[in-house]
Amino acid sequence: MKAYSIRELLEGDDKILQEVTVKGWVRTFRSNRFIALNDGSTINNIQCVVDFENIDEDELKKINTGAALELKGTLVESMGKGQSVEIQVNELEVLGTSDPETYPIQPKKHSMEFLRENAHLRVRTNTFSAVMRVRNALSFAIHQYFQQNGFNYVHTPIITGSDAEGAGEMFRVSTLDPKNPPLTEENEIDYKEDFFGKETNLTVSGQLEGEAYAMALGKIYTFGPTFRAENSNTSRHLAEFWMVEPEVAFMDLDGNMDLAEDFIKYVLQYALDNCKDDLEFLEKRLLDEEKTKPQKDRSEMTLTEKIRFVLDNNFKRVSYTEAIDILKNSKPNKKKKFQYIIEEWGADLQSEHERFLVEKHFKCPVILFDYPAKIKAFYMRLNEDEKTVRAMDILFPGIGEIVGGSQREERLDVLKQKIADLGIDEKELWWYLDLRKYGSAVHSGFGLGFERLVLFTTGMTNIRDVIPFPRTPQNAEF
Amino acid sequence: MKAYSIRELLEGDDKILQEVTVKGWVRTFRSNRFIALNDGSTINNIQCVVDFENIDEDELKKINTGAALELKGTLVESMGKGQSVEIQVNELEVLGTSDPETYPIQPKKHSMEFLRENAHLRVRTNTFSAVMRVRNALSFAIHQYFQQNGFNYVHTPIITGSDAEGAGEMFRVSTLDPKNPPLTEENEIDYKEDFFGKETNLTVSGQLEGEAYAMALGKIYTFGPTFRAENSNTSRHLAEFWMVEPEVAFMDLDGNMDLAEDFIKYVLQYALDNCKDDLEFLEKRLLDEEKTKPQKDRSEMTLTEKIRFVLDNNFKRVSYTEAIDILKNSKPNKKKKFQYIIEEWGADLQSEHERFLVEKHFKCPVILFDYPAKIKAFYMRLNEDEKTVRAMDILFPGIGEIVGGSQREERLDVLKQKIADLGIDEKELWWYLDLRKYGSAVHSGFGLGFERLVLFTTGMTNIRDVIPFPRTPQNAEF
Repeated sequence: MKAYSIRELLEGDDKILQEVTVKGWVRTFRSNRFIALNDGSTINNIQCVVDFENIDEDELKKINTGAALELKGTLVESMGKGQSVEIQVNELEVLGTSDPETYPIQPKKHSMEFLRENAHLRVRTNTFSAVMRVRNALSFAIHQYFQQNGFNYVHTPIITGSDAEGAGEMFRVSTLDPKNPPLTEENEIDYKEDFFGKETNLTVSGQLEGEAYAMALGKIYTFGPTFRAENSNTSRHLAEFWMVEPEVAFMDLDGNMDLAEDFIKYVLQYALDNCKDDLEFLEKRLLDEEKTKPQKDRSEMTLTEKIRFVLDNNFKRVSYTEAIDILKNSKPNKKKKFQYIIEEWGADLQSEHERFLVEKHFKCPVILFDYPAKIKAFYMRLNEDEKTVRAMDILFPGIGEIVGGSQREERLDVLKQKIADLGIDEKELWWYLDLRKYGSAVHSGFGLGFERLVLFTTGMTNIRDVIPFPRTPQNAEF
Repeated sequence: MKAYSIRELLEGDDKILQEVTVKGWVRTFRSNRFIALNDGSTINNIQCVVDFENIDEDELKKINTGAALELKGTLVESMGKGQSVEIQVNELEVLGTSDPETYPIQPKKHSMEFLRENAHLRVRTNTFSAVMRVRNALSFAIHQYFQQNGFNYVHTPIITGSDAEGAGEMFRVSTLDPKNPPLTEENEIDYKEDFFGKETNLTVSGQLEGEAYAMALGKIYTFGPTFRAENSNTSRHLAEFWMVEPEVAFMDLDGNMDLAEDFIKYVLQYALDNCKDDLEFLEKRLLDEEKTKPQKDRSEMTLTEKIRFVLDNNFKRVSYTEAIDILKNSKPNKKKKFQYIIEEWGADLQSEHERFLVEKHFKCPVILFDYPAKIKAFYMRLNEDEKTVRAMDILFPGIGEIVGGSQREERLDVLKQKIADLGIDEKELWWYLDLRKYGSAVHSGFGLGFERLVLFTTGMTNIRDVIPFPRTPQNAEF
């Protein structure tokens, strides 16, 4: 007797009248007769009908929400609505009980905060299992897209000896005695004694190392964890998150925009094609959640509409300079409805501005490019105007920036100047400069914060709810 | 005019007589006429024939090894041997020069140590580009295998607040002032003041968190970086390496062995199917390397033979107890040829013993199972004999252990006892114990050190040469 997953059974009209074994966890048990069983393979439960007269009463009492069961029976067409097949149970074994007095995940509404405190169990709920299956599908779509397009997956280092990445505060990695660290004669920490013989941190980006590989393998991407030691306790920040960073030799900023748009559309289409049931559930969940909000805070689009909004529109390419003009002259700016009023060229854009451009002005995803050099990183290619750099940000509805990228500065002298202007020691970046010394060429890439993509695709509102075990200030439980 | 990758051009007889553009880096330039150009898409170079009389002499001088070029020309059938097509160049642009006086990667043999010191450039060599493309293919094969079999990819946390994983020494992660850390009244470091409000480390394994997800989603896998702060300066150890860890609910140890064997064969077959040219090159490289060794140290099998040895044989399943008997009575044990003589049941096996079983005794890959509880981790399921646990190790030729796994202890009382025996505070593992309290069931999984797999598949001998930027004691450059 083959053991099928519940997904296979629910899809398999061809298995009608077969004897099947199924193992899973009880979601609900009603009328001493109907078990809704789930095994994680799908959001849908299979209904298992037990004949309570033939089952030991002590066993029956153990069929509580969360209990693990093994059932044998016959797959039959279902009379109930909402399901095509069900199992007429012949044999039932309780593998693991679940005390209803103490099991935290009862079939009722729990607060998100409570579920975060039970992150080891929350994936047993419909919402979180759906989110994590969508997260899985998006992950695979990312790999499949790049592999089909000739990119090589590169594992850039997590522990970095370089502190010149410049993307934010870093976590120190050390094996020195924290109480009595060795000191130098100048009374500083003697990192020569540390594990790596120097001060090391957790990476904030694999880009610089990714560039080294792109300048040899041509097209590469990274997909791995990155870190920010910023004390930001918001629904948009994590201390540990996953990032996707493609990098392509001989590609300019236009090519970079083409790549990013094509890539995003591919992975979203993949989720639509492969997570139909999960997305349907998440769409309903979002509608229910929004009903509790005041009208003005509700999204104008359903979850599927938002995904289709990205899929069905060309991304509008707008220069930063043009965007500033639009924003300066916009109603919310003039009427001081923006929290941050745009006064002049050079201003950094906030999420409210990005969303205005996407949702109100252009009504399509937007790619802003050619940002002021001063508000962007040192490695971005300086334009001929010497004021702007070949940077691009992709802006999405509801979420603002989802991708940030650039054409990289490939000219050794210009890059050296930038590094000097920042007061960074050239020696720190000797190997990065080597890439401009030997066989340099135009190249570009971008970074996509993976959790932002999962947030967008699932309609969840807090980034802590789209990663299995979130790390945030004061929280590294599990 | 479409820009093709060199791989596409070399495969594309259909493009003969087309005008093409190609961009890449010079591998060699001979007779002022023949450029071997590589763009990383394949190990093979395309021959580009320039008419030096029509090219400016200053430009010609810039065509050195490592220089980046853009070439336009006509794809024609090649007269030379070893290549089917070549490009008759009409236009040549040097995008980035490469000074032959200083460029470290000259077309000659470099020591591996020298190349490690130039890890940002070593991927421009045939050997490292081949290794990294094989690494990429194996990575994707891992994802594809699990996705096709209904597993969900789970990103388990890198920063962990748990120090009970028990797999080795850990790196501390902190943002406290290293020189003047805050102290408690007891004069200990006050980790409440640290970023996460507690002491945190880099993970040594995602297994425990993976189990939480398997007990909800059914079948999951992790594929991410893990860390060991062990001062092991060997060709087999890295401080930062990638690990694959599947975990399956309702699966026992037999199922675990089936899964591991099927999985390994799939990914190796994928590499054979998708990395033909790279593996051919690496096989020749290995043969050349082995010629420099004394006969007795040479491998009996070529690289392909070793891969086929794994693919074409059933993995022999042998209990630890049986293996100890075989080893005790073996010639090298009796003649004291082993470095570690096997004297009695309970001994931990060394690589020399594992390789003897695989290469000399059974002549096939071996799965050892039911190890003494004392030499294995606390979470492994105790057998009825109360002496052994449901552990398994998979042993490979040349390399010894490549996979370690087990059926997990699913019984709350037994697990609690084990934790108490180890002196671990139950509170440290409250959430892990919850998995046994609520809906517990048989479940199993294994870990595969990804770099070991890449070593095996590429025939490289030092683990530092199969990861882009290796982290080892005293080394976190780049």
